[in-house]
Amino acid sequence: MSRRRAASAASGASGLVPRLLASYRDITLEALLSNLPARRPAYLYELIPEYPRRPGKGLRAALCLATCRALGGRLERALDSAVAIELFHNAFLVHDDVQDGSERRRGGPTLSAEHGVGIAVNVGNAMTLLALGRLRANRERLGPSLAWRILAESEEMMRHSLEGQALELAWIRDNACDLTEDDYFRMCLKKTSWYTCIYPCRVGALIATDGRFEVGRLDRFGWYLGAAFQIQDDLLNLAGDYASYGKEIAGDLWEGKRTLMLIHLLRTASEPVRERVRRFLGKSRGERTEQEIRWLLGLLAESGSLDFARRAARELAEVALAEGMVALGDVPDSEDKSFLLQMVRYVIERDR
Amino acid sequence: MSRRRAASAASGASGLVPRLLASYRDITLEALLSNLPARRPAYLYELIPEYPRRPGKGLRAALCLATCRALGGRLERALDSAVAIELFHNAFLVHDDVQDGSERRRGGPTLSAEHGVGIAVNVGNAMTLLALGRLRANRERLGPSLAWRILAESEEMMRHSLEGQALELAWIRDNACDLTEDDYFRMCLKKTSWYTCIYPCRVGALIATDGRFEVGRLDRFGWYLGAAFQIQDDLLNLAGDYASYGKEIAGDLWEGKRTLMLIHLLRTASEPVRERVRRFLGKSRGERTEQEIRWLLGLLAESGSLDFARRAARELAEVALAEGMVALGDVPDSEDKSFLLQMVRYVIERDR
Repeated sequence: MSRRRAASAASGASGLVPRLLASYRDITLEALLSNLPARRPAYLYELIPEYPRRPGKGLRAALCLATCRALGGRLERALDSAVAIELFHNAFLVHDDVQDGSERRRGGPTLSAEHGVGIAVNVGNAMTLLALGRLRANRERLGPSLAWRILAESEEMMRHSLEGQALELAWIRDNACDLTEDDYFRMCLKKTSWYTCIYPCRVGALIATDGRFEVGRLDRFGWYLGAAFQIQDDLLNLAGDYASYGKEIAGDLWEGKRTLMLIHLLRTASEPVRERVRRFLGKSRGERTEQEIRWLLGLLAESGSLDFARRAARELAEVALAEGMVALGDVPDSEDKSFLLQMVRYVIERDR
Repeated sequence: MSRRRAASAASGASGLVPRLLASYRDITLEALLSNLPARRPAYLYELIPEYPRRPGKGLRAALCLATCRALGGRLERALDSAVAIELFHNAFLVHDDVQDGSERRRGGPTLSAEHGVGIAVNVGNAMTLLALGRLRANRERLGPSLAWRILAESEEMMRHSLEGQALELAWIRDNACDLTEDDYFRMCLKKTSWYTCIYPCRVGALIATDGRFEVGRLDRFGWYLGAAFQIQDDLLNLAGDYASYGKEIAGDLWEGKRTLMLIHLLRTASEPVRERVRRFLGKSRGERTEQEIRWLLGLLAESGSLDFARRAARELAEVALAEGMVALGDVPDSEDKSFLLQMVRYVIERDR
């Protein structure tokens, strides 16, 4: 299949991606909710379903389950790992909201806004703990050797995520204004691609092949897919519709996040403009004003930085598709294989 | 040996406890620091040694190593686990400081006060991640079966710690003013005893006996020892000397913590006094005044609540010693066995 035909198939209105996403999301959520500890003490386990139950894409668990099935594995064998992946993801979200001081998540208040930082940090930790429990359950289902392997993969994923988060926090703290697009992509690989795409695909593939899969094979697919996903997320953050996006619009600007478009703006703007942006970024969140946010939004549009990011997302998606086709070249056609390839277009066309 | 003679031996000025504590602390700290990831990115791994390097007791790692040696195990086999225990402990401290909004820890600023909540949450998570890495390293040194077992013990410890933390946070959030001493002891078992004493002793014993140790055997010793330790900590918090204690004096009152003495005061005070204390506890940290703190400190002393707590710590220590002597009854005498038993008196006589 030529790249053009594949891309065209991927863009079809078949609805395969939304359908399988919804199906895998339901399966994972049910497994997640079916096995939570008793409700006591208050403000702990009862808060764990909050984020998972709100409208979310369920992308990460779906990538794990679809990769497992596309490579000939049974879904049930990957289910504990898919639940662990969703729990890790939600733990990151809860802590991320604490770290960024965010107010809204998936259309509702963040846990920290509603219950305070203390309880939110604790609930995030409990999610990580339950994820570890699911990975330990793999020992029964998959045998000790494969279970250890997946535990090691999980540790590597956590390491990348924490390092990516550290990079982003450091840029804000140090008011870094001389970053390059390469800096952004390095951060994005660690902060987004690894845990959103590379890790779920690796785990699904390892389970399908009983550990025989050469894990690096899907990495490039996952890396470009994750980068395209993150840039689309940054675009939605600035220009999305709150009703579907579910977070504060322009929250990234309030937080001073170093997105691809902001880095592009800082690199291409005239010195006086750059200096004004730098002063804005040097303020704390509370010092920033509505007016400044509107000014910066206009600037990002006029300077071509939004277009630059849109183009980058499209180009990354194209490379992701090509990499996916190479990586899955000798894998028999199936709904799950199509799902993985069509995911590429989905992540840059989604509106939430 | 009679209980009286044991207690007298335990109180001896032999200096065994400080000496072995310092020795085990050095060994563990060196192993911890010798294997940290590279320094980049900024604000992550470079901050991990911060708390471990500040003056601390190293109690938890020492309990693990001493239990292992007292039961005939080699120290080297328990070293990765001891490092994991210290890393878990420091992760709790870093997150606890975020959760409580604390300013000082071990004589220096808290990570959150110095670097912000975002970076502190991340560093705490990185400590937990590195602890997991040490537990995975157990697979090489101890074999997969014992390594899984210790992982399961670690998960149970984390569960108790998070549940204990949730209890304490919930009491503050809901302004619980009708707690009983039993409520306190339940919280204390989960929040303190499990990860401070029960878990380190269990792990040390499992390693010494290659998993054959009946883990429950040291639990009662650990439980009473941990409770005595926590009450002494609460007493030092109110009345300690900052130079040796290293935290804000009366920080617990600023934070509204439900300590044993506060619960005793609420239970025994006259209704008008109770009502005033309740109103004080209903305020946020920022609304409380220096004057109120001094008033409450005086009240705790006059009402006999401090004496009540001191008596409770002594009684718990006595029971801990008795339980330790039963649990270790058939264990040959050794320096490490003496260390474990003398620890009982140390925890209630320490000034930091």
